[in-house]
Amino acid sequence: MGEDLEVKKVIGLMSGTSCDSIDAGLCVVTPELKCELIKGINYKYPEHIRAKIFQIFRQEASIKDICQMNFAIGECFANAANILIEEFGKPDLIASHGQTVFHAPQSEKLDNINLSSTLQIGDGSVIAQKTGCLTVSNFREADIAAGGEGAPLVCFADEKWFKSTDKNIAVQNIGGISNVTMISHSHPTFGFDTGLGNIMLDYCVNKFYGKSYDKDGEIAKSGVICETWLDCLLQDDYYFINPPKTTGREYFSQRYIENALNFAPSEPKDIIATVTALTAKSIVQAYERFILPEIDIEEVVVGGGGAYNPVMMNLLRTYLPEGIILKTHEDYGISNNYKEVMAFALLGYCTYYAIPNNLPECTGASRRVILGKMAYGN
Amino acid sequence: MGEDLEVKKVIGLMSGTSCDSIDAGLCVVTPELKCELIKGINYKYPEHIRAKIFQIFRQEASIKDICQMNFAIGECFANAANILIEEFGKPDLIASHGQTVFHAPQSEKLDNINLSSTLQIGDGSVIAQKTGCLTVSNFREADIAAGGEGAPLVCFADEKWFKSTDKNIAVQNIGGISNVTMISHSHPTFGFDTGLGNIMLDYCVNKFYGKSYDKDGEIAKSGVICETWLDCLLQDDYYFINPPKTTGREYFSQRYIENALNFAPSEPKDIIATVTALTAKSIVQAYERFILPEIDIEEVVVGGGGAYNPVMMNLLRTYLPEGIILKTHEDYGISNNYKEVMAFALLGYCTYYAIPNNLPECTGASRRVILGKMAYGN
Repeated sequence: MGEDLEVKKVIGLMSGTSCDSIDAGLCVVTPELKCELIKGINYKYPEHIRAKIFQIFRQEASIKDICQMNFAIGECFANAANILIEEFGKPDLIASHGQTVFHAPQSEKLDNINLSSTLQIGDGSVIAQKTGCLTVSNFREADIAAGGEGAPLVCFADEKWFKSTDKNIAVQNIGGISNVTMISHSHPTFGFDTGLGNIMLDYCVNKFYGKSYDKDGEIAKSGVICETWLDCLLQDDYYFINPPKTTGREYFSQRYIENALNFAPSEPKDIIATVTALTAKSIVQAYERFILPEIDIEEVVVGGGGAYNPVMMNLLRTYLPEGIILKTHEDYGISNNYKEVMAFALLGYCTYYAIPNNLPECTGASRRVILGKMAYGN
Repeated sequence: MGEDLEVKKVIGLMSGTSCDSIDAGLCVVTPELKCELIKGINYKYPEHIRAKIFQIFRQEASIKDICQMNFAIGECFANAANILIEEFGKPDLIASHGQTVFHAPQSEKLDNINLSSTLQIGDGSVIAQKTGCLTVSNFREADIAAGGEGAPLVCFADEKWFKSTDKNIAVQNIGGISNVTMISHSHPTFGFDTGLGNIMLDYCVNKFYGKSYDKDGEIAKSGVICETWLDCLLQDDYYFINPPKTTGREYFSQRYIENALNFAPSEPKDIIATVTALTAKSIVQAYERFILPEIDIEEVVVGGGGAYNPVMMNLLRTYLPEGIILKTHEDYGISNNYKEVMAFALLGYCTYYAIPNNLPECTGASRRVILGKMAYGN
């Protein structure tokens, strides 16, 4: 199959668990499965659409809302892509992650039928029709149908992009949720969600300061970490589950956060400092529990919004065992902000060429499968 | 493109608005877009799964339920296909309509984003993974994204299968909802939902007799039509809207039915007789209002469950103007029961070959588009 591959222009589209906006990136993907970002943009969800999405998260949405928001979010994703199309012309294809509104990879059965499932909305046919481009969407379903968690999928890209170096690298994304991909010479690539990323931090910054996030870690910098509350938060069951494992807003929910805040220090700035430390320390503890006993991590490469938070980066440096090099994706020429968009551009490219694009060692699937669904944009 | 088409074996999968079971049919589709049914089977939804679907219809489902049922129904569809695969081997592809749980093609806007939408669950990637077959699913979305109603889609097949005759034919499906496709030499093929099919009839038979449907019209036969109630029911706004138009359980809901029953005759058998007449008379009135002023219908060809109800067929005969021939699909060698399954097998074949497969005159779409999403089954 390899000889037929060509260089393709792919627009990747992604909206993460923090759900404030859509990231869109025009990428060039090569037959060697490398990916270069030409331009990334950020498209804010219109106000009432965003409110509707949070209504779905809060389990207050009707079937009509979900039906309508699948189309409305598809149109928002198309709008984001069309900004790039206006500047650069049509790509060969669009690869859209969609907006996750529920993720339940480990469910019981009903009438002996599996209920393990995930739901990303932002319909692929709507994106295809509103952009005129072939669109690949809904990547996670096939992996869950093959017995996996449907996540993390970015590991596939991490392996293609970081494996060529001769080091054992932990590729650490800090988005709403944090996930790691471990690339080494001794073991097959594997990965899992380490736990909280910015979901709780952003929630608290919004609650106490009315801002969407702690820019440059300024608030955390002014506070003091409450070690007893931090220790208490680190006792959460999730951190002790063996990988492969994934999590999301279903678990680290508003209810989880509000419950945790009952035991928080009284000063909001100390809360922000401690929650920032929680993300950093839970990542390092995940390494110590599940990776370092087996693999000598030589380098940690951070991406996602967390890479721009100097307090979080300093805490990671502090908590990490000595000798481990700490870098960001930018050091490898990969955008911290648009890394996931680039990863989905690569996944879409593979689907287009019918190249299996999940990593069973990361997702727990029983086999390699071709993820995604293709819709024509004629 | 035409020269590359080949004969393909396609399994069509469908569950209609009456939602008691999944129809699966192994078909042979030819490059001339003819379709032959090799074998059709009927797969009953497991009890609790079916109850969950009705919970969704009643707007009592959570986002978790919808997420899980999308996968569970996908597995049920795969189970239905696998019964045929066990007997006949793998087809070249599967074409699945899915289970409609909401249909809102004419919605307002929010933040200037369209809310017109439809939702079919029974995930295509799940079907693909659980059968190992390339699966085309989610046909209606692209048409709505192109400005259409997303229905009726079967018109496309009707045109291919009935147009070769030299008559003006009304192809009338009587499923949960009734829809007509008008094929003539003077006008482009068009179609619309005429209104109620068996939704209200089945509901009443179940409510008063505890049965799932009025087999052979036995109950209706024993009752008397209440003309005043019938006239009252025929005043519903839907029947007066100009085509193209589509409807569903969102409109002819349990609430609609229960409200209508407040004015019903006291004898259950008279209710059944009248509701049977309602379907027949609303179909004929739709012809008189929207077709006969323009086109001289020479023949009506009935398919769907209604074709097996002799009382409904006799009433159609009675209400139709003299001189119009009344036939069923079987007279054309097309299964009354599996006609929609055959139609979706054809639609899936066209998607596979990137042949546009909506009819804008029927759906109201602004253009011809390639419907559906493809998922690999490796």
